Amino acid sequence: MNNVFVIGLGLIGGSMMLDLKYMEEGTTVYGIDHNEDHLDHALELGIIDKKADLNDLGTADLVIVSIPVNALVNQLGDILDRVKDDCLVIDTGSTKKLICEAVANHPKRRNFMAAHPIAGTEFSGPQAAIRDLFKGKTNIICEVEKTAFRLQERALAIFSELGMRIRYMDPVSHDKHIAYVSHLSHISSFMLGKTVIEKERNERDIFDMAGSGFESTVRLAKSSPDMWTPIFEQNKVNVIETLDEYIANLEEFKKLMEEDNFNAIYERMENTNRIKEILNGIIIKTT
Amino acid sequence: MNNVFVIGLGLIGGSMMLDLKYMEEGTTVYGIDHNEDHLDHALELGIIDKKADLNDLGTADLVIVSIPVNALVNQLGDILDRVKDDCLVIDTGSTKKLICEAVANHPKRRNFMAAHPIAGTEFSGPQAAIRDLFKGKTNIICEVEKTAFRLQERALAIFSELGMRIRYMDPVSHDKHIAYVSHLSHISSFMLGKTVIEKERNERDIFDMAGSGFESTVRLAKSSPDMWTPIFEQNKVNVIETLDEYIANLEEFKKLMEEDNFNAIYERMENTNRIKEILNGIIIKTT
Repeated sequence: MNNVFVIGLGLIGGSMMLDLKYMEEGTTVYGIDHNEDHLDHALELGIIDKKADLNDLGTADLVIVSIPVNALVNQLGDILDRVKDDCLVIDTGSTKKLICEAVANHPKRRNFMAAHPIAGTEFSGPQAAIRDLFKGKTNIICEVEKTAFRLQERALAIFSELGMRIRYMDPVSHDKHIAYVSHLSHISSFMLGKTVIEKERNERDIFDMAGSGFESTVRLAKSSPDMWTPIFEQNKVNVIETLDEYIANLEEFKKLMEEDNFNAIYERMENTNRIKEILNGIIIKTT
Repeated sequence: MNNVFVIGLGLIGGSMMLDLKYMEEGTTVYGIDHNEDHLDHALELGIIDKKADLNDLGTADLVIVSIPVNALVNQLGDILDRVKDDCLVIDTGSTKKLICEAVANHPKRRNFMAAHPIAGTEFSGPQAAIRDLFKGKTNIICEVEKTAFRLQERALAIFSELGMRIRYMDPVSHDKHIAYVSHLSHISSFMLGKTVIEKERNERDIFDMAGSGFESTVRLAKSSPDMWTPIFEQNKVNVIETLDEYIANLEEFKKLMEEDNFNAIYERMENTNRIKEILNGIIIKTT
């Protein structure tokens, strides 16, 4: 690989470039972003070597597309149109069904690998990019069989050097399950932040009372609306289902409180404490 | 201060003792706990010097009562009955109204200081105790005027050595606001954990897909039901109010999704991003 292009210089694309630059001598990283400030920052921070635009894609050996999922659906076909026959194009979108459908019949479908590296922080933009973001993290690959053999091989070598664990999954299952373990967490956090801000609007020093527990549960409410609005839109049906179940659990908790059934409340919490072992699994895997 | 007693050798009581032992030469720490294992662990870990029971309280100069809030309401009067006239008794309960009411007319009310050190982790028991847990954290003191002057002074000196920032508040306001910035976070986290565990019961490797965002939002679902059930019970009215508002926000978010009103969803998230500045305030204060 010599000419690496990254389209979208956010946290994911930027962090991936920081790692890839050290992986192979003679790699030149070209950055494409509609936000000129992001390009300038990425150059200053050494994330990219050169600015580029879509017309330069014909020289690319590898293209990482890390843009919001609505832009992915719209632009992926055009990107594939522009690359040469042995170029590998990888997306990093948090939804997979509509993205895979958008290029299902594209003549260069075999140049594309649908991926979702489950990594990130609540921060965004090239300034948020960090080395080793992907180390020990899970990367979901969808429809691997639709990618050309040699390009599968190259992609897996890259993910392996980034330190990622690979899981294969069909796009529909991906979107269904990710709604529970990622999308719902973001909504719960955003709405918690909203509830508290609304209530305490006029009493700012109340936040003096907030401890690390509050901080942890509302951390995701710092996330970018530009990234998350199209995710919720594309995964609407699954997300609404998770929201229904979450709201039903909250309603039940409230009802138990109103009925003074604190034994049942104790039991609900005790059963949920099992999350400890589940999280231990996550922590062991990711460190 | 020479004879320090701690009643309840959990995270809070244990951590406080670890710090206090180093604050004054010649301090002997006595531990009281109905759980014999906790006492044994606390001895082994050097958190306490000696095991004791309630009959020994007559020799105490300082008593820290760090037991669940229902036990506090039941036992605080008896504890005050047993201490000498110049002994300072401090509680660390996460609710304040019922605790203050329970001893409002106690003849030794002036020996008591109602406190809520907003510190902790999701872990519990003496094994979870750590040095410097309270450094930079907020300590809410209620009804300070009801504590004897000299004992106020002693308490403030202790909190100052622990590194805590003091905020004075009436018990009713404390319980109202803490419901938003602490109790609601715990319920949101417990119910998120419950929703995901229920859904993914038969697909354990789905948790492979969970990243640090999920981990952060469900962290509090590891918390102890023994501690939290009585907190929700004592703060029932306020907690139900916060739950109503939280559920209403989630319902609205769901409705906006169903109506494909993603502009409004974007706007809700963007407005809530202000939580960044609020959290920066918390982080600056606590580190």
